[in-house]
Amino acid sequence: MLVSVIMAGGKGERFWPLSRISMPKQCLKIVTKKSIIEDTVDRLKPLIPQKNIFISTNKTLSKHIKKVLPKVSYVLEPFGRDTAAAIGLSCIEVMKKHKDAVIFVETADHVYLNPKKYLQHIKAAYDEADKNDHIVLIGIKPTFPNTGFGYIKHGEQFNKGKIKVLELKQFKEKPNLSKAKQFLKAGNYLWNSGMFVFKASVMLEEIKKYMPQLYKGLIKIKRSNFSDKVKHEVFSKLKKVSIDFGVMENSVKTVVVKGDFPWEDVGDWRLMEEVHKKDKSGNVAFGKTLAMNSKGNVVLSKDKKKLVALYNIKDMIVVDTDDALLVCPKKDAQKVKEVVHELKKKKLDKYL
Amino acid sequence: MLVSVIMAGGKGERFWPLSRISMPKQCLKIVTKKSIIEDTVDRLKPLIPQKNIFISTNKTLSKHIKKVLPKVSYVLEPFGRDTAAAIGLSCIEVMKKHKDAVIFVETADHVYLNPKKYLQHIKAAYDEADKNDHIVLIGIKPTFPNTGFGYIKHGEQFNKGKIKVLELKQFKEKPNLSKAKQFLKAGNYLWNSGMFVFKASVMLEEIKKYMPQLYKGLIKIKRSNFSDKVKHEVFSKLKKVSIDFGVMENSVKTVVVKGDFPWEDVGDWRLMEEVHKKDKSGNVAFGKTLAMNSKGNVVLSKDKKKLVALYNIKDMIVVDTDDALLVCPKKDAQKVKEVVHELKKKKLDKYL
Repeated sequence: MLVSVIMAGGKGERFWPLSRISMPKQCLKIVTKKSIIEDTVDRLKPLIPQKNIFISTNKTLSKHIKKVLPKVSYVLEPFGRDTAAAIGLSCIEVMKKHKDAVIFVETADHVYLNPKKYLQHIKAAYDEADKNDHIVLIGIKPTFPNTGFGYIKHGEQFNKGKIKVLELKQFKEKPNLSKAKQFLKAGNYLWNSGMFVFKASVMLEEIKKYMPQLYKGLIKIKRSNFSDKVKHEVFSKLKKVSIDFGVMENSVKTVVVKGDFPWEDVGDWRLMEEVHKKDKSGNVAFGKTLAMNSKGNVVLSKDKKKLVALYNIKDMIVVDTDDALLVCPKKDAQKVKEVVHELKKKKLDKYL
Repeated sequence: MLVSVIMAGGKGERFWPLSRISMPKQCLKIVTKKSIIEDTVDRLKPLIPQKNIFISTNKTLSKHIKKVLPKVSYVLEPFGRDTAAAIGLSCIEVMKKHKDAVIFVETADHVYLNPKKYLQHIKAAYDEADKNDHIVLIGIKPTFPNTGFGYIKHGEQFNKGKIKVLELKQFKEKPNLSKAKQFLKAGNYLWNSGMFVFKASVMLEEIKKYMPQLYKGLIKIKRSNFSDKVKHEVFSKLKKVSIDFGVMENSVKTVVVKGDFPWEDVGDWRLMEEVHKKDKSGNVAFGKTLAMNSKGNVVLSKDKKKLVALYNIKDMIVVDTDDALLVCPKKDAQKVKEVVHELKKKKLDKYL
């Protein structure tokens, strides 16, 4: 029984001013006419019925997500404690309904331009997890020396399928450029996509082994019949630990499926260039835009009647909403979160 | 009898998107809390009563200006035919009320940071025009090799006052940088400020001498008792000629008063840096602005509740209004009118 857990706890500060506390990036309609999380669910539907799709998020975010996705299931954390806690909680909540569940985990902020291949790889990972009790990561064949992702070093193939299941040798943190180039050249490194498939029962065993504190907390939650109060108590005592660091890097049950399909991380405004067609000057513009002597810009204007006029502007991000406007060089797309942090510091809450 | 004619026929396209057809730059409140034209009138009041201040403009613009200045007088052109026609028409309209009028002409788009000195120079020019029937230009002592203004070459002083009245040798068109540097070094060149003082009767004589076609038209208008129909007929046949080219460069009655006081031409958005205090990063910002790692910018947001966030932005102009946003490097401030021309070409009238 394959079920899906979509981790949607992120805030997406780098998509400010479009993303807000009340409008997390998962709910933004910047890739298609639907929100990113709707697309994520739609993409899975051929493989997994909607009721078996769980969204792992917190209460605040769930209010907003439920508006667009009322029919999926939800795993609600009292607050974020990183991915190990989120996945642990998801395991026990999913098992309440499906004792034998095999879970496909992914985050809500990915874009797959080839959904068919995406589903084929999930299916292959499911088969492996189901048959051999493995925790199966899906790694993506790198196409350039990206320094924004973690990498996975892999070993030999040990299945016979067209989609390769490989030995997982080592996790590598986000590398610097020269290391990333080495990885690319070596040929036996994959991007850590954050997608993985495992039996819920197997994951819980591994958590018991490598994160006993978390395991005890999960059992407490389960015994309380998932009471909000106990969840809150347990989570408030947990440290923030990622599933990679807490379980994956220790477990001997991990293997990796090699994915050779386009994958975009919805990381910052540069995404717009990856998923949308540029005009002949290399601008990607949403809303009425007059770009004179301007190229390589990402422009988004929320008010469809408003005109954004650029004159001699190169490689900029311009995002205009009702109450806030951002202008920032494209190369600083990652730094947009610093703007959000500064707004917090200055207590300009209404722009958050 | 000193009266003032303020020429306010300009559109101010370089202040788009704040300036519009319905909001000419003279009406913008970007220098003080009052509009530029209100400031112009207020500045003159110690010398000239409001009823003797005439605004020369066209019908469309006058509608907007009358809202802020209902008590001054107006000289309405059917449409713009450059400054010779505007001044000629002003002469006959003013003389209808004041046969002996001495007229101080200036344009509505100037800023004088020292109004006291400004008035002293007008008074000196008035005395000269009144006593000797001269057409008295006010030239400004150049402070840098500006290539955006015309220059006046002057000769010897021939009065005895503290404020010097000088022989006017020659008009010089806007120079290139090397010529402008020569002018500055030579020491006997002044910026042509577009301010001048003359008896209305003297100016009409000179127009009769050097622009007989215009003179005939003016007489026709006067004889029709200033009928709109005749004005329209006459103006539609006139060529566009500036007063400098049509009269000043030919007349032997011209002299120049040397002005040594700060004068700003409201030419484009860079004005904001001349008349407003910069913050410690050298930004001039109106409206809520968060400038991180950003310097030398001119920011104006019309909606006072809206936040403009800049990250790593240098020497840019960012002007945000309800229905249009402009982003442009400061060095291209002059090119903003090209944006307006492009909007016209594209028939995007609602943004004009």
